Amino acid sequence: MKIAGVIVEYNPFHNGHLYHLNETRKVTSADVVVAVMSGSFLQRGEPALVDKWSRTRMALQNGVDIVIELPYVYATQKAEIFAKGAISLLSSIGVDELCFGSESGSIHEFQNTIAFVDSHEKEYNERIKYFMSEGNNYPKATSLAFQSLQGHEDVLDLSQPNNILGFQYVRAIHAQNAPIRPTTILRTKAGYHDQELTDTKIASATGIRNELLSKGSPLESIQAYVPEPTYNELQQYKETYSTFHGWHKLYHLLRYKLLTASPVKLASIYEAEEGLENRLITMAKTAPTFQDFMVAVKTKRYTWTRIQRFALHILTETTKDEMRPALEDRAPYLRLLGMSGVGRSYLNEIKNSLPVPLVSNINQFHHPFLTTERRVNQVYALGFTGKHQEEFLMKEYKTSPIIL
Amino acid sequence: MKIAGVIVEYNPFHNGHLYHLNETRKVTSADVVVAVMSGSFLQRGEPALVDKWSRTRMALQNGVDIVIELPYVYATQKAEIFAKGAISLLSSIGVDELCFGSESGSIHEFQNTIAFVDSHEKEYNERIKYFMSEGNNYPKATSLAFQSLQGHEDVLDLSQPNNILGFQYVRAIHAQNAPIRPTTILRTKAGYHDQELTDTKIASATGIRNELLSKGSPLESIQAYVPEPTYNELQQYKETYSTFHGWHKLYHLLRYKLLTASPVKLASIYEAEEGLENRLITMAKTAPTFQDFMVAVKTKRYTWTRIQRFALHILTETTKDEMRPALEDRAPYLRLLGMSGVGRSYLNEIKNSLPVPLVSNINQFHHPFLTTERRVNQVYALGFTGKHQEEFLMKEYKTSPIIL
Repeated sequence: MKIAGVIVEYNPFHNGHLYHLNETRKVTSADVVVAVMSGSFLQRGEPALVDKWSRTRMALQNGVDIVIELPYVYATQKAEIFAKGAISLLSSIGVDELCFGSESGSIHEFQNTIAFVDSHEKEYNERIKYFMSEGNNYPKATSLAFQSLQGHEDVLDLSQPNNILGFQYVRAIHAQNAPIRPTTILRTKAGYHDQELTDTKIASATGIRNELLSKGSPLESIQAYVPEPTYNELQQYKETYSTFHGWHKLYHLLRYKLLTASPVKLASIYEAEEGLENRLITMAKTAPTFQDFMVAVKTKRYTWTRIQRFALHILTETTKDEMRPALEDRAPYLRLLGMSGVGRSYLNEIKNSLPVPLVSNINQFHHPFLTTERRVNQVYALGFTGKHQEEFLMKEYKTSPIIL
Repeated sequence: MKIAGVIVEYNPFHNGHLYHLNETRKVTSADVVVAVMSGSFLQRGEPALVDKWSRTRMALQNGVDIVIELPYVYATQKAEIFAKGAISLLSSIGVDELCFGSESGSIHEFQNTIAFVDSHEKEYNERIKYFMSEGNNYPKATSLAFQSLQGHEDVLDLSQPNNILGFQYVRAIHAQNAPIRPTTILRTKAGYHDQELTDTKIASATGIRNELLSKGSPLESIQAYVPEPTYNELQQYKETYSTFHGWHKLYHLLRYKLLTASPVKLASIYEAEEGLENRLITMAKTAPTFQDFMVAVKTKRYTWTRIQRFALHILTETTKDEMRPALEDRAPYLRLLGMSGVGRSYLNEIKNSLPVPLVSNINQFHHPFLTTERRVNQVYALGFTGKHQEEFLMKEYKTSPIIL
């Protein structure tokens, strides 16, 4: 039996994701497709547009067999740690092949790049430092360092976001000696960050989110870009909650925290760095919206994502101490969010030989990562109004995995 | 020249306050009346219904000559510390006579009671401990201890809230050797905590607040109970902000803080006591409103006010370390909120001989108490919506005192 893995956020699931999923099945001839998916908060330091249960349903309805949650402590990290957590979960659940989308589309470029970086590690790190000292932020410095070193080898364009992620996936597979074969699919059309809906079928998740969050925009405006099950799910979601989640729902809490917290306390928060916390405190005093706040805080030295992740950890009160184990360790449990019939059979088959516990109900398993998970989900819940807060938390604590 | 002092909250200013003010002038033959007034947060651990600037205008329009702000570090404390701060301010500004309302109405009862308590201090404290060990909360135990000791002396009923405050005022005058003569006026009609409007002219501030905060209740319903300037002020306030301030405006922030804070961090907050913080965290998880929260947290051991004050210090992130100086020290500055022409002349006359600085603009004076003040006012501001937040803070930082 062939098991393929994908690493996703599905925020929300769109036609590009469906293409990737279908190609994954085709390329790998997989019998079972496992998705490791972020939960309430995403890699860019944002709350998920729709909750994890809704996104799990979208995944299952579009062909995923098993959805495993990527814990917050990995999901909200830079590519390297995000990848480490995700790969360790795929490895634990017995995935044979990882299939990721990239701007490159050639797995050889990934392999070559890793070999190149490994053999130039010292110079590479020195150049990163040099480019950072020139005032570049980390991702930019990494990309410049890499460009400045490479000759005519067949290597990656590491300024592309999906190439960066893929690069870290393949690196994590090597580092963990995971028995997973990586393959990649060329991403089609819309760029990762493209903000506008320009094509009739494929649009970036960012573009779709912007459309969904813009006032007065009807749901129909994104209908062409998402599979029918996603559309139905979004429609039901909007009927229930009237709006979608986002920083706009939680900024007042971040602001309040920044206005009352002392810089000393903020310094213990993960991603705090000398001076940055003071900057956030100062800007929170006057910025009325999250967008205003981010624009005010942004400097050349820090990427938008870096600041947004720090803001998220302040919001969720996630400390450096709490994050430390995630930087070192493999993911210590598999939290099952949902499964298809096929997924269920597979899990029944392997459940007694899994190297880590399979957790269906987080009330029945204890781990420090789940303490973090409970807290951050309490915060996510505050983005809902009235009884929906409790409903979400009930789902979080008491629902069995979704079975399709 | 005769200077009289009053200690007030004016939340809001009503006919009972006007009566007290007029009687104060009559009894003391004062040329100048100085009010020490709480700012954004009040002794019972609540946000003020209308902001301090509006309440200052009410005070001036009804005959007060000088309004001095009682700093948060005194204003949100039990009677003893509240009194210490207020008396030290009145003493600094040169008040000759303090006139307070009480359920007793006889200053001799206050003097007798203090003499009695002083001469029975050891027994008194032992009995308080005893009654607390029986499961009574502190105020109740104090009252029981006192009752159990007293013979037929002409002493106070210390179960009455204004008697308790007055008792602490007179005690503070003694303790500080303040050259202030205390007098008291019998309070008329409405009890301190009376919740309903039963009389055509005098109603308690609590009753008026409840009426103002109840949905659909027209402003006219309280018109009979407040002087015309108050009514006009409230009318304008409501037109500007649509609603009044209260815990209902800030509970979502308290809840968020409780849901993300660790018990260890909460233990450093002022008024934290073993176990109580855990109780608050647990109840915040499910209580959708502040009222629900308080009812859930309330036990026989703690008074409603005690819990509310702790909740307030959590909300404003006020620590034990931060409060310590207030427990020991006299108020270190006089913050002027407003003055009449008469008040202005008096201040011009004495300003060079004041024992502490007179602060008109808090941006031009530095003190740890003002750091606290700034932070708690940032929190109070979050109870306003949109641009009103900034407007309030502008008033707080940039407005000169109100001159009538």
